[in-house]
Amino acid sequence: MTGRPTGAPATGGTARAARDAANARAVARLTGARPVLETVALAGDVVPGMTGRTILVSGPPMPWREYEGGQRRAVIGAALHEGLARDEAEAEKLLADGTITVRPSHDHATVGSLTGVCTASMPVVVVRDEASGRRAFCRMNEGADRASLTFGVWDDGVGARLRHVTDVVSPALAEVLRHLGGLPLTPLIRRALAMGDDLHSRHKAAGALFRAAVLDAVLDLSRGGVTERHRALAAYLRSAEYLFLHLVMAAAKAAADSASGIAGSTLVTAMNLNEKWFGLRVSGLGDRWFTAPLPPVSTLRGRLYDGRTTDDLAYVGGESLITETVGLGGMAAAAAMPLQDHSAGTPPEMLRLTERMYRITLAEHPEYRIPALAYRGVPCGIDVLRVAGTGVVPAIHLGATLRDGGHAGAVLFHPPLEPFRQAAALLSAQPPHTPTTPV
Amino acid sequence: MTGRPTGAPATGGTARAARDAANARAVARLTGARPVLETVALAGDVVPGMTGRTILVSGPPMPWREYEGGQRRAVIGAALHEGLARDEAEAEKLLADGTITVRPSHDHATVGSLTGVCTASMPVVVVRDEASGRRAFCRMNEGADRASLTFGVWDDGVGARLRHVTDVVSPALAEVLRHLGGLPLTPLIRRALAMGDDLHSRHKAAGALFRAAVLDAVLDLSRGGVTERHRALAAYLRSAEYLFLHLVMAAAKAAADSASGIAGSTLVTAMNLNEKWFGLRVSGLGDRWFTAPLPPVSTLRGRLYDGRTTDDLAYVGGESLITETVGLGGMAAAAAMPLQDHSAGTPPEMLRLTERMYRITLAEHPEYRIPALAYRGVPCGIDVLRVAGTGVVPAIHLGATLRDGGHAGAVLFHPPLEPFRQAAALLSAQPPHTPTTPV
Repeated sequence: MTGRPTGAPATGGTARAARDAANARAVARLTGARPVLETVALAGDVVPGMTGRTILVSGPPMPWREYEGGQRRAVIGAALHEGLARDEAEAEKLLADGTITVRPSHDHATVGSLTGVCTASMPVVVVRDEASGRRAFCRMNEGADRASLTFGVWDDGVGARLRHVTDVVSPALAEVLRHLGGLPLTPLIRRALAMGDDLHSRHKAAGALFRAAVLDAVLDLSRGGVTERHRALAAYLRSAEYLFLHLVMAAAKAAADSASGIAGSTLVTAMNLNEKWFGLRVSGLGDRWFTAPLPPVSTLRGRLYDGRTTDDLAYVGGESLITETVGLGGMAAAAAMPLQDHSAGTPPEMLRLTERMYRITLAEHPEYRIPALAYRGVPCGIDVLRVAGTGVVPAIHLGATLRDGGHAGAVLFHPPLEPFRQAAALLSAQPPHTPTTPV
Repeated sequence: MTGRPTGAPATGGTARAARDAANARAVARLTGARPVLETVALAGDVVPGMTGRTILVSGPPMPWREYEGGQRRAVIGAALHEGLARDEAEAEKLLADGTITVRPSHDHATVGSLTGVCTASMPVVVVRDEASGRRAFCRMNEGADRASLTFGVWDDGVGARLRHVTDVVSPALAEVLRHLGGLPLTPLIRRALAMGDDLHSRHKAAGALFRAAVLDAVLDLSRGGVTERHRALAAYLRSAEYLFLHLVMAAAKAAADSASGIAGSTLVTAMNLNEKWFGLRVSGLGDRWFTAPLPPVSTLRGRLYDGRTTDDLAYVGGESLITETVGLGGMAAAAAMPLQDHSAGTPPEMLRLTERMYRITLAEHPEYRIPALAYRGVPCGIDVLRVAGTGVVPAIHLGATLRDGGHAGAVLFHPPLEPFRQAAALLSAQPPHTPTTPV
């Protein structure tokens, strides 16, 4: 099954035909991906290019000195957790002189939630796209606590929870996945879309389905008795509401990577942010980032915990936007009415939000469908030309972080139009050509 | 003559005030119910008035000789299963002479799915309304097989599956519920309504949440090893898609019973059907059934399995309509877009179906809410006067049964208007009075 292309903007006939062909290939890769959760492993053992002194972060590349907020706190925390420095001052020094290297996750087949920090000794989920054979990675969710490295907080409690997830929960989950021979994610995502999840800000259905599947496997493994490790896994699954987000992120990254590097394709293959910049990549333009400054946090819309307002927020990076890249999250708002207060506001506005996204996408996903739109496939394959032509930007459901760190709720985020325009202008200026080599 | 409000009967102010007060009490009981799944037990041990020779059936009372289809097959099957007769001929004889008694479930605090047959040795779920202290019962779901006593089929396979549920699955579930100290159902129902369930024809979310909760408890109980019984329970939960329906039915019956018998109240407290008749009860008219012949099966709307059409169907009884009585099922169609093909047809029609139901109901449920209607409470507390006044009948999501027995899918059912009119006429003719004794 592949996605159904829905037309293309008017350009010269030859250029247009080449672009349509390139986009058809990109869409086929994006929608044909069949992600399987293989295992959980230490980043240092599986993430390509990872070294003992690498710290991955979310977002387009930015010089270390420019990190000032939650990502800086998280990187320093990660350095201490990894034992790369004895204290903050030493960490600062080693980061400044490049002994510790801060690297963009996306260049390591990895995506990060919010700050996105990941070091060699931290566990990552490993998702393989069976269609392309590509693997992608995302750090294991730290659990339910609002204070975490993900949300820009580092203290002893964060460290202890991280060690628990590394030493106890992750090996137990890896054992379950070995027993299951991997877990296909497409059926879970498909079912969750019919159960009120957008698969970015809401994972209640997917989480329940995943949890039941894992617990069943634990029972299978426990004829002789349930180990403490498995009981810890069960306890973790009861509360780690966003674990499934990390699985979907890795799945989406594998799919998006499989659609990248197709000459002439105008399909967006990544969107992310660091503390200051929004960035995107386009299939036909390879690994180049197109960036623009982030809009003020006061422009975000959504309901926050504890009566906080958007003025209390700060950007700390984030690559969960990879879910929107494959048509989930804000693109699939119409599937997730329970998110209305965290998104467009009312049920009709949730429907209109998704309906607007069909104007800027190349396809409707053949597997991911929305019951409230009579099972229409989610709008999938964002086209920079359509975004530039219409001025409509992707709708993104984003986790919100407090200025001083910590989970603050979920909001609706509209990225800046400028990087889509830059990429569109560059692609329009390129001479028409057809791909000549397999990618 | 002067005009009167739509839906309200032409009566004097006193009668209306008394009726409003009675209905306010009835609604408070109906919506204030807090059902808890207590245990699973043998019907003979817990169902009031149950004897070794009682067979419960769904629907308003009908003489035994008039049962000709699926309910007759199921009653005879139940008699054989119970060991009350050696063969069909003897069962027929004992049923004809009254040695075996066929009794309406509703008179035994019980509701039955489809045929609704239940004998003393069969397990029932026990639900207690913590607000009123009332208990209600529904036979354990027989599992995923389309052939079952519920769907009017009796053979050796049906018998074997029934024994497995009785001897293995039910004791294991009872043990889990003992360990949990009972399981409150309101939170599960509330969450499932935000996850695409109507809690009549669809229970995928509630089932996943229930299954995860049960599996967690099984792990707690299995430190020394997982028993075969618990593994059988886990296997049953993987496939018994409509188990949760039986829990909701018992919950709804307890709530509806707590709202019944309130003098002057025009609130519907039961709707059901046997092979031939639709029936309803009204709070202010106690246990009296108001009935009308069922409409032809060709008037049903919905998608069936294996390309079957409504012409292949037959009525076999059913009391799952008790879910509509508390505002779920077809009343909550707007919450369950995945059911569109089995119900009103399109998403906008699903919304309109529920919106129409507010015209005939007295309240919006304070706990059961619909995200797609901006979290409006489900239309709850069907008012026979409003039904009679508007001609709008309750929308019901019904399981469909083949003529020869077996599960055929799910359909939208509109009950006949006549019994609502009869009850409304009787209530309007009664002298106005206020309740003087607690009920």
